[in-house]
This record gives sequence, C-alpha cells and structure tokens, in this order.
Amino acid sequence: MKHLEKLIRQIASRINTILLKHGFDADLHIRKCIPLDKLNKFYAFYGITSFHPPGFYFRHSNLAGSYFLGKCSVENSILYKSDIRGDELKAKGDIFHHQGSDIVMYDDEVIRIKGSFLIKTLVHNFSHNPDNLEEFLILSTVSMHYANIHGSPVEGSFLGPFSTIDLTSLHNCVVGAYAYLQAGEVSNKLIKPGQIRVSNGDMFDFSYRFSSKALDNYISSEPGKRPRGIFIDFIENRKKDFQNLFDVVYLKTSDKIPDSASVNRYAVIKGETHIGENVLVAQRAYLENAWLGKGANAQENCYIINSRLAGSNVTAHGAKIIHARLGNKVFVGFNSFLQGRADYPLTVGKETIIMPHTIIDLQEPLNIPPGHLVWGLIKKQKDLKKHSISLVELSMINGELTRGLMHFKGSGSAFVNAFQDRIEHILAANGAYFDGRKNKGHAQMERNISFNIIQPYPRGPLEGLYPTIAIHS
Amino acid sequence: MKHLEKLIRQIASRINTILLKHGFDADLHIRKCIPLDKLNKFYAFYGITSFHPPGFYFRHSNLAGSYFLGKCSVENSILYKSDIRGDELKAKGDIFHHQGSDIVMYDDEVIRIKGSFLIKTLVHNFSHNPDNLEEFLILSTVSMHYANIHGSPVEGSFLGPFSTIDLTSLHNCVVGAYAYLQAGEVSNKLIKPGQIRVSNGDMFDFSYRFSSKALDNYISSEPGKRPRGIFIDFIENRKKDFQNLFDVVYLKTSDKIPDSASVNRYAVIKGETHIGENVLVAQRAYLENAWLGKGANAQENCYIINSRLAGSNVTAHGAKIIHARLGNKVFVGFNSFLQGRADYPLTVGKETIIMPHTIIDLQEPLNIPPGHLVWGLIKKQKDLKKHSISLVELSMINGELTRGLMHFKGSGSAFVNAFQDRIEHILAANGAYFDGRKNKGHAQMERNISFNIIQPYPRGPLEGLYPTIAIHS
Repeated sequence: MKHLEKLIRQIASRINTILLKHGFDADLHIRKCIPLDKLNKFYAFYGITSFHPPGFYFRHSNLAGSYFLGKCSVENSILYKSDIRGDELKAKGDIFHHQGSDIVMYDDEVIRIKGSFLIKTLVHNFSHNPDNLEEFLILSTVSMHYANIHGSPVEGSFLGPFSTIDLTSLHNCVVGAYAYLQAGEVSNKLIKPGQIRVSNGDMFDFSYRFSSKALDNYISSEPGKRPRGIFIDFIENRKKDFQNLFDVVYLKTSDKIPDSASVNRYAVIKGETHIGENVLVAQRAYLENAWLGKGANAQENCYIINSRLAGSNVTAHGAKIIHARLGNKVFVGFNSFLQGRADYPLTVGKETIIMPHTIIDLQEPLNIPPGHLVWGLIKKQKDLKKHSISLVELSMINGELTRGLMHFKGSGSAFVNAFQDRIEHILAANGAYFDGRKNKGHAQMERNISFNIIQPYPRGPLEGLYPTIAIHS
Repeated sequence: MKHLEKLIRQIASRINTILLKHGFDADLHIRKCIPLDKLNKFYAFYGITSFHPPGFYFRHSNLAGSYFLGKCSVENSILYKSDIRGDELKAKGDIFHHQGSDIVMYDDEVIRIKGSFLIKTLVHNFSHNPDNLEEFLILSTVSMHYANIHGSPVEGSFLGPFSTIDLTSLHNCVVGAYAYLQAGEVSNKLIKPGQIRVSNGDMFDFSYRFSSKALDNYISSEPGKRPRGIFIDFIENRKKDFQNLFDVVYLKTSDKIPDSASVNRYAVIKGETHIGENVLVAQRAYLENAWLGKGANAQENCYIINSRLAGSNVTAHGAKIIHARLGNKVFVGFNSFLQGRADYPLTVGKETIIMPHTIIDLQEPLNIPPGHLVWGLIKKQKDLKKHSISLVELSMINGELTRGLMHFKGSGSAFVNAFQDRIEHILAANGAYFDGRKNKGHAQMERNISFNIIQPYPRGPLEGLYPTIAIHS
C-alpha cells in the first residue's frame, strides 16, 4: 500500500495547508477515520445505459465501493463508498440560465474530482458556477460520512458528516456536521455544525441552527474520532442488508415492478413493499414495508421503513422516514430524520415541505397539517408551533420573521415559489410525470442498466490503487 | 442490436472474401452458430495483478463471457466466452531468439485482435512471427468452439472446433475440426479435420491423421450446424457447474490451497480434490475428485475427473483426463481426451508424452509404459502398438518411420529434445519449480488477482456492444 498511503498523506497535507487559517486540522479527520484495509476490500462500479453516453476516467485513485453514472473524471483521490451520479449533467448545446442571461454549453459537462477524499458522500446534479459550467469540480476537498455535494462545485474545503452543500459554490470553507448550505458563492467561511441556511442574494434568507446539545445525540463529530450518534447507529444496524446485493453480479428484480418504474439493483427491498407507477428507487436506498405511490422517489442513502407515501413524494438523498404516513407531494429534504412510532405513526398532510436536515423524533402522537414548511427539531406536538409555518402565511411575509430559532428575511412568496418550482423539477427529472410516451425521467431511463465492476491492484506497492481506466462511447 | 448485427455481417463478409478461393463459406459457420441473444447475456472480465501491468483497449466489440489477462487490444470483433491470456507476452527489452539471432523487443508485446470472431477460443503465449514480435496479431479470423491459438499470429483464416495452431504463423488458411498444426509459417492451405502435424523445417516432421469416421463420433462440424459429438456432450453436461462461479463477485477459496499454489476463482473444484505445492489451476479448469501432486498444472478448459496426477504434470489447454493415474511429469497435450473407466482406470507411466489431440477411450484395461510418445486413437491394448513409441527408440531414428497412420521423418532426437525442452519451459513458466523464493511462475504470480467486470450496453441500437474502454497502469 506504499503508493496509496503516500497519496493519502499528500491529499491531507494539501488540504491542511489550505484550511490552516481556520485553525482546522483536516488531517486528523482523514487519517483516523478510514481503516486502510477497507480501501482494498470493496469494488467500485459504474452504470452503462443507452441514455448516458459513458465517459469515465480514473487515474491514481482508490474508488472502494463507489458508484458512478454519467461523465466523471477522478484523479489523485480517495472515494470511499461514494455515489457519484452524473445523470443530470448539462449536455453540449444546452442552455444555462444565469441572472437573466442564457449561456450555451461548449461541451458535455463532466464531474471532475481531483486531490480529494470523499467518504460515503453523494455527488449529484450539475455545476451552478457560471465561471465553470462545463465542469462540476471537486478540488482538494475532504467530505465526511453521508455528506451531500449537490450541484455545488467545491474547492479546498472540509465538509463534516451529514452536511449538505446545495446549489452553492464553495471555496476554502469548513462546514460543520449536519450543516446545510444553499447560498450561491461562499468563500473562507466556517459554517457551524447544525447551521441551516437557504439564501438567495437580496431575495430571501432562511436560517436556523440546531442547539449543540440537541444535535450531539444525533450526530457528533470530533477530530480524530469516528462520527457517532443516533444517525450513525441507525445506518450501522442496517448495513448487513446491503451485503448480499454487492456479492452477486446479477440480481433478479421483482416482477411486481411496473414498466414505468425502476428499482436499482443496489437498493435493499424488504418486507411488504409496494412500488407504484413512475417510481424511482436509487442505489443504496433502503425500503422495508414501504408503500410508494405513483411518481414517488427514494433517493440515494434514504431509508423508508414501515411507511406509506401517497405519491409524487420526494425522499431526498439521505432522508430517513420510519413509521410515517405522508400525503401527496410531501417533500422530505436531504438527510432529514423522521422517526414516528409503531403505535403513533407520524402523519404529514399533502404538499407539506420538510426542510432539508429536519429531525422529527416523536415522543407523542403528531399530525403535521398540509401545506406547511417544517424545520428544526420536533419531538412533541408543542414543538411544531416553533418549527413550522403554513406556506400561505409564509408567502405573505415581506420583511422579517423570527419563530423559535428560525429567522427569515426577504420575500416569503419568492422563497415558497422557488421551493415549489424545485420540487416540480425534481419530480419531472425523476420521471414522476411519465405518461407512457412522453416526460421520461430517471425512473424510465435507468431501468435498463448494467454495471461494470472495477477493482484495485490486490498486492504490491500499488495495492489499493486502481489502474488508469478510460471509458467512452 | 442494430450495430452488433451489422458488425457480425461485416466480419463474416470480409473473411468470406478472403477464403472464397478455398470454396469456403465462413459466413455459414458464424451466423448459424451463435444465438444473438447470448452476446448480451454474459459479462466479460479482466484480471488485475501486481505482476502484469494492465494494458487493455476494447473498441466496438462484443466480449461476452471473455477473460483477459495481460496487454490486449480488441477492435471490431466478437469474442464469445474466449480466454485471452497475455501473461507470457514479451516485455520491452526482452530478447527473442530466432534462427541463431537475438532480437531485442522495442516495446511490451500486445495481443491485438481485429475484425475477428472467436468462439470459446483460448489465446495464449506470444507471437513467434519474427516480422511482428511486438504484436500477437489475430486479424480477420474466425475460430470455432474450443480452438486454441497458441503463440500463433493468424490472418484471414478459419479454425474449426477443437483445432489448435501452435507456434505457427497462419495466413489465409482453413483448419479443420480437431486438426493440430505446429509448423512455422503456413499460407493458403486447407488443413483437413483430424490432421496432426508437428514440423520444424528440415529437422523433423511428425504427421498423423484421424480417420473421418472415427473422428466424427467425437467431433463433427458441418457448415450451418453447431458442432456435435462426444466432446461437445461432455462439456455441455458439465456447463451448469460453472454457473455459480460467474454469479458471485467474490468467491472464498479453500484454505487447503498451499501458499505456493493458485486456484483461479473461475475454476470448478468438486468432490475430494487435492491441490499440491506449486500447482496452477487456471480459469475454466474443472477438477472433480482430482489429486494434483507438486507442480502439476491444470490449464484453461481442461477437465480432470476421478484421477491422480503424481506431480509436475502438464494438462494442457482443453485436455480431458477421466479415471486415470498419471506418473510424474506425464504431459497431456492440447484437447486430448483420456477416458479411463471406473473399474479399469487408465494408467500412464512417468515422463510419457501424450501428443496434443490424442484420444484414449478405453474399452478394456490399459497401462501405458513410462517414457513413451503416444498419439492418435486408442481404445484397446492392441491399438497402443500402432500409436506409441518409446522416447529412446524415437531418439535413435534419423530418417523415416511409419507406424499405423503416423509418419515421421527427420531427427528423432531433435524431436524428443524439442518436446522435452518445451515441457520444462511450461513447468517453469507455471511455477512448478518455485522454491519459496526463486523461480516464481503463474502459480505464484496469479495467486493474488482481482477481476474487473465489464458489460455491454443493455438496450438501444448499441445493445450488445461494449463502450470503448482503455486501461493501463
């Protein structure tokens, strides 16, 4: 493993130099968190479909357990059990709208990862950085367990466990555990753990921060230690169910899946699970006694257990839904944790938006009404008041609003419209509106997919590194 | 499958044009022999070890079920369940001895397959063509089930089922079923089915031909039909045992395999099988109640069933050994078929050479003495007389010898020495003489290997074709 260890040292030292000004030691996070032996234990795999012209380039990297779909280049990096999805990248000739201008793409966009160390991180969507629209660049960056890098080019940064950067360009930042950032361009900032921020220039700004004490139970991250807490335990307890999926080359899928739906063969399906029309179940999703109505989707690293989703639901990357009944078009954002109870399931009315990084962990029965925005940490009925607002009420705000630890300023209607537009976009992209001929999305296009399996050198000084591999159509 | 079908038509038409002068219709053989749907059913795989710098290039080809090890480039070709081994290719700077001259290699040698259609064919060893030593070229060629292309560049030729070309350069030839050719450069020839020929310029010439009637029972090949006969039935009956090996990604190997031996994870191991020190069991070998003594090897597509091999045995590509007891250093050549019986196993004395393409199918007990050369078709004790000679006797021949259907001319001692040298080379290359530190061979170097799995486009016009893939160190 001589060369692999040297590569890890190089990546850590480079990022440390960058983040030293924040008094941050990335090295501690990297070195102590990954047992070297696992980097040689898992294969990587990439999907081949007729809808995604393949374009992969892997050089001097370890890709253990990682998944790739769509154009991607990886150099001098460690991607440990990461999901790198490139099925929403822009194509040559596509038009990108930016502040009233139309920008035409020179070339097909590529996800480019260089000198980075990503652990169980989801990379998805496309670059929103107008300086570099043909490249979704992840450069000299460390991201920890279950972070999401969504439509966010990032350079010289550290992302804590379960953090999300979304439609943002990030430069030389440290993002704490479970922080969520959707905020255009951000440079040289230290984002505290549990900080939630959705900001669009002068239009609106939503912010909330979990108390450290409350958050620590769920996810705690100290330098030099593995992240721990309820989130980690929850995932660890279900890890074994994935084992069999990775051991076999071909997996016979259920014949109960409608022609318009797709269930990735690397998803766990247990118990009495129902898959409706136009449903998308992504790789590393986990369904157990889950009823998914028409056009619902279950994205990477999400868990839906003992729950019923009426239809057109978005269960975003890393969201967890247990003992719940969700109405039509309920949206559950990134890494949210919705824990109802067997004797009093959580119910959520239609078209309600559960903000990314929301924790609902019931200690008593709770019904969330339709058409609301919900955030923060909710355990009891009385918590709901300080952690939700009806979308109608929010739309009428123009100025400032403080509710509990949440602060909002700007145009409420712009915020609500932006969110609802985005949900419609997600449903359309995932194929929820397929009519048998038109409006194809991921559910229809990723139905017929085959996976290529790649492995590192098994021994010698190159042990753990993958050969240089280039694949194109 | 639009593009794949077009490719098959193009390959067939090109080869037909070349072989028309022999009144040969390659098209009939290709088109009727491969059900199109299977070309999309099996994955291909290539081995990554620290001893073989990877160098693969696949373009516009179907590789269903094929295995690759060592540098190889495949373009516009169909390789259906073929084994392409490149672990004996020459390296940059290596010296090739040719007729008293030393030729230094400019570059690492590459197996280059272009415009060809190979079915279950083994390609191994290296180019012996002094015009093109850096390329082991297989161009515009069709080869049928269980043919061997061993150290033999070949252009514009057709190889019938179970035929072997060995250390030969072949140009515009048709080679009949079960013919074996080891004869330097051969152009524009039609080699009849069951013709065995080992020839080295003016030094020696060994030839034998099976009677058509006798051979037909074992292997018969008519244009427009699948090959049939005892050989095919034998393999078909054991096909299912391989299924499980291909379904799983990782396979736990037995802990009874000595550190100095290797058993490929794509080999079938059944019953009470013993693997001695320095043993090599290659992919797609089949062992059932097989006892392999120190330094024995079991090469691709060989079957060793209810048999005991004392040690330092070579069981060459495609050889079958059933109910037999082989003494030390017994050599069993390519595609030989040795069928003893449970109540009277075949016994073969030490250092006896079973010529490639020999059929021993016992109808009564038979002991073959040590130190003999054996060829042809043997069913009874009395057949042995016309189908064997002691190596001592053969070494004394200088001139001509006819025995049954066998004709020999030249230097018997040169023939025997060449054969024995080659057996020593094979044993050394396979690691039979490893002493714990020195004399490593395939058995030691292919012990730690991982396999990458590649698959074709699953749907659309490109269905069945593989993306363009380039892999190097």
